[in-house]
Parts: sequence; structure tokens; C-alpha cells
Amino acid sequence: MGTLNAKARSQTQLAISSEGQDWVLLGASPDLRTQIEATPCLHPRGGTRQSPIAAVALVNADLDHVLGLLLLRELQPFRVYATASVERILREDNSMFAMLNRVADQVRWERLAPGQVSALGNVHGEEIGLCAEPVSLGTHFPQYVREKRRRESEPAEASLGLVLTDGEGRRVGFFPAVPSIDDALLQRLGGLDLLFFDGTFFDDDELVRTRGSGQTARQMGHVPVGGGDGSLQQLAGLRKPRKIFVHVNNTNPMLDEDSAEYRAVRTAGWEIAEDGCQFEL
Amino acid sequence: MGTLNAKARSQTQLAISSEGQDWVLLGASPDLRTQIEATPCLHPRGGTRQSPIAAVALVNADLDHVLGLLLLRELQPFRVYATASVERILREDNSMFAMLNRVADQVRWERLAPGQVSALGNVHGEEIGLCAEPVSLGTHFPQYVREKRRRESEPAEASLGLVLTDGEGRRVGFFPAVPSIDDALLQRLGGLDLLFFDGTFFDDDELVRTRGSGQTARQMGHVPVGGGDGSLQQLAGLRKPRKIFVHVNNTNPMLDEDSAEYRAVRTAGWEIAEDGCQFEL
Repeated sequence: MGTLNAKARSQTQLAISSEGQDWVLLGASPDLRTQIEATPCLHPRGGTRQSPIAAVALVNADLDHVLGLLLLRELQPFRVYATASVERILREDNSMFAMLNRVADQVRWERLAPGQVSALGNVHGEEIGLCAEPVSLGTHFPQYVREKRRRESEPAEASLGLVLTDGEGRRVGFFPAVPSIDDALLQRLGGLDLLFFDGTFFDDDELVRTRGSGQTARQMGHVPVGGGDGSLQQLAGLRKPRKIFVHVNNTNPMLDEDSAEYRAVRTAGWEIAEDGCQFEL
Repeated sequence: MGTLNAKARSQTQLAISSEGQDWVLLGASPDLRTQIEATPCLHPRGGTRQSPIAAVALVNADLDHVLGLLLLRELQPFRVYATASVERILREDNSMFAMLNRVADQVRWERLAPGQVSALGNVHGEEIGLCAEPVSLGTHFPQYVREKRRRESEPAEASLGLVLTDGEGRRVGFFPAVPSIDDALLQRLGGLDLLFFDGTFFDDDELVRTRGSGQTARQMGHVPVGGGDGSLQQLAGLRKPRKIFVHVNNTNPMLDEDSAEYRAVRTAGWEIAEDGCQFEL
């Protein structure tokens, strides 16, 4: 056994706010409670049930991205933004999600549709200074989704990137699961001020190598960071956005700050998200 | 605002073992990962995927009792013990639970039936030195369970107590949700060496009082600790078992170690479960 110069990290969980009053969670990870406890700006204000969490925006139906919703069931009312397909998977195929709507005026479900800009709001119908534009990225639903539901769902609604814009035109991109990069995506990313991008795996065969079996990164819907057609190479021309890798798997060698992979990422101007990190635009 | 002389507590989560090798989780709470990390005997041994968690026994389908199962989906194989009704609620009405069976030989579901003693085993079919006898306690399924499923389910399978016995006849009782106490239950509890009992609420009207509305403890299926017909009074004659309150809600005044309620509980010979506490028989 050796030692590893790497930081322990919680699961991927971001929160974004225009003015610091109303916050939108990007996904709801299973360890959300601990993460909220560690984040003062998300603590209840005034009365104990006055949570600053106004909304949750979902980009897919992955367990690690949606389970935390069930932990918010005793909060004050909030909105959930999701595609029609993702909402059906959660509400129609998983009876537990009824706990989000067991009393009137609890959670309000709102629609995200690829290419369609939505002004985000809190549950009182007040806008909170952020617009979201979903970008269709992947067509694969999670493994747990039943065959019939899969057939009846819209593939373009399976996995999104989100571009969030505030009133002054500042743009943040959330792209935690990117199966491939094309020119249209490159152009969109180029206009961002801040980019959170899929850093799941460094090498395409990373899981196969470490576990002895399994799928490649690309088969799992993640373009790897390294290699000739990895994200580091393909996004090398992005000048404008500050660039942060998120959704980093614990097998990813770039987590080891003594590794060549870590140096390659940092030299290319990327950062790797850490627990508690904050970004202000 | 005053200060409170009380300890912060995680959610209810117990693990039991006969020899310290194979452990059975009693329920799987949503904060299970953090609790496992804080508990060395549950850490993987040898290879990183050699978890000592052999099985999970479920006494009901409450979210706070079952959600943690989904966090165990990447562990080595294990068994889940549940009633037929609870298993159907999870596996047929919540597609996410398919993640526990996405590869062969992952999770094996085993039956618990009230009044029927089961020898618990690990996924290799080896017995682990513990027998479980379920006791039917409540007939109410959680609020999220759909009307049709509710009609088709067996009320006696909704909520259990569990009596666990090892090879030397030592007996531990796990009774986290007890709607009422009768003579048959009293007699059964009297034969235990160690009892974990429903300490959810101290007063029947505790939630109504603190929130201004809601249900009473008894309406929610929990006999209160205090009062003339509370558990403290009704179990006052139990001489044999060491007695521990579990499943204590954060509104329960006995958590305040300066309170009269705390003194009453301690004077009556009860303990209140704390994070990390261990009991050896």
C-alpha cells in the first residue's frame, strides 16, 4: 500500500445563485444533507424551515443525481426542473417520489426542454434572476429505467447540459456527463464565463483496467479527459471560460496531485472541483 | 435563542454480528455511507470490495429505513431480508431498486414472515450465527405507497419488530416503531437481553405542539415515551433487558440532558442511543 496525495471528495453537487438569496441546486446528490450542513449560505434563515433552496434542476435521472431530492422532502416548498422524460421516470415509476407531493403546495415540477430557455423561479412564482437553457447531450437513460418506459421516452431528454445566465449576461455551463464533443458544443462552451465539465474518467479504459472488467468511459457516456480525442485536447482552444472538472470518479488518476495526469490538467489551465469550492463572477 | 445540552445524532442505524465477522444492518438509513465510514468494523477488509456487510434486514418500507439500500449498490453481494409486501413496494413500485440486481449474483432477496424464524445468511449461503424472528407490530404502510398496492398488501407485513438470537441463546430486540403495547409484546420483550425500542416522541402531541399542526405520535404509529400509558410506564416491569431508546425524533425533549424528561428516562433505567455506541453481550 502506498499513500496518495489526493483530497477526499463528496459527490458532485453544485448550487448557483444570482444574488445570493435564492439558490438553485444542480442535481441532488445522496450526500446532500451533509453538503448542505457544510455550506452556510444554504442554511435555513429566520425560521428553521426558511431554506434558501428555491429550486433543483436535474440534468438526468442518475441515482447519484436525483436521490437527494427525497432528502429535501421536509424542507419548505421548492421547484424541480426536469425534462418530461426524467419527470416520468421519477414520479410514475418510483412511488417514493410521491413524498415530495404528499401535501398541497410542496414541490412544483417544472419542465426543461432542450433548446428552450426557462426563467427559473421559486415556489411562490417569483423569478430568481437566472435563466436555464438545456442542451441535449446523451440519449441513454440510466440502467434502472424499465424497457417500456425507455421506449416511450424521448432520447433527447435523457441527459442534458445546462447553460445558466444571469441578468447581466454572465454564463455558467454545467456539463457533468458529456458523451462526445462536436463543433456545435464547442461553440456553445466558448461563450461561457465558467464551465463545469465532465471529468469522470481520465482514460477510456480506466474502469476496465482498475476492476478487470466493465465498460469503457465512452460506453458509459463520458468522454475521457486524456488521450488524443479526450476533452483536454478537444477543449484546448477554449479561451474565455474558467474551466473546472466535476463528477470525477475515484479511479481518475488526476486526483493524485503527484501524478502526470494532474500536471497535464493543471498545465492546460483546468481546475478540479473540491468540496466547498466557490466561484464568483 | 437558548442553548441545548444535547448531542447531534445521525439517523437510526444499527448493525449486529454474532462473531464480529459478518454484520447485519438493521435497516439502511439515507446517511449510511457516513455512518459506515465512522464505523471501523464495517470497513472493507482485504480487497476494497470485501465488505463485512453480509445482509440488511428491513422492518418496514419507510424512506429513512430503506433509502440507504441504494447506496450499497456498488458493494459486494449481500442479502436483503424483508416481508413479501415490503419487497413488492420496493422492487415493483420503485424501478430504482433494479440497480441492486443489475448484474447476476448481486443482491439476494429473502423473505421475512411474522412468527417465522429465519437463520440469517450471507450471499454465499453460509449461515452467520444469527436467527431473526419477526413480530408483526403495525398495519400502516408509508404514505408514499400507492392505493392499489396498499389494497393488495398484507397489513401484518407493514411494520415489524425483530428478535435476533445467536447460537448461545442471547436475544436482542429491534422495535423502532411500536404503535401500541399489549401483554403478548410485553412477554416477548421480557425475554430479551438487549432491547432497542421506539423513542420517537416523548409526548403524544409533541409534533402538533412544536409545528402547530400535524398528527399525534399514536396516529403516526409510535407509542410516546411519557404519560400514563407511555412506554416508560408500560415497560416499567421489564427486569431482564438492557433498554435503549432509538429512532428519537429531534423534537423529543429527552434529548436535552438538562430536561426533566431526560432525568425521568435515565431514572427508569433507560439509555438513549448515540452515534457510535456499541453493546456487547
